[in-house]
Amino acid sequence: MKATVLVRPKGDILDPQGEAVERALRQLGFPVGDARVGRVIDLDVDAASAAEARAQLEEKCDRLLANPLIESYEIELEGRA
Amino acid sequence: MKATVLVRPKGDILDPQGEAVERALRQLGFPVGDARVGRVIDLDVDAASAAEARAQLEEKCDRLLANPLIESYEIELEGRA
Repeated sequence: MKATVLVRPKGDILDPQGEAVERALRQLGFPVGDARVGRVIDLDVDAASAAEARAQLEEKCDRLLANPLIESYEIELEGRA
Repeated sequence: MKATVLVRPKGDILDPQGEAVERALRQLGFPVGDARVGRVIDLDVDAASAAEARAQLEEKCDRLLANPLIESYEIELEGRA
């Protein structure tokens, strides 16, 4: 089952990448607000059901894909938001 | 208008981050396939309509947010996929 994990810096965490994007876009003449940069991870999970895939992915996120202290994550399974 | 840009390495481009994720998950006992790592960029765009926001973002992506030679991007506007 194809899955996508979005990992983002939590709201109260400084995000230097986002600040750099904002600054660079402003210099190009595109004012934007509140830019935040995170990671998107696409992967293929071996699971019998969506619930099982989600449970597996949550464990993966907590242990490896995200740093739960400073990042939040969102899991999307193919065909289900 | 809030927008999310997903930037991913194109299919035929080597993705060492994705390979590292796959290897690390395998070592933790989670076999996964085809892991690819990209970036997710959230930002606030000043545009009157969704079409204008999308046009602005496409220009931003081509000029700064993505490297069109090796990356593809996908634009999501709040409330519209």
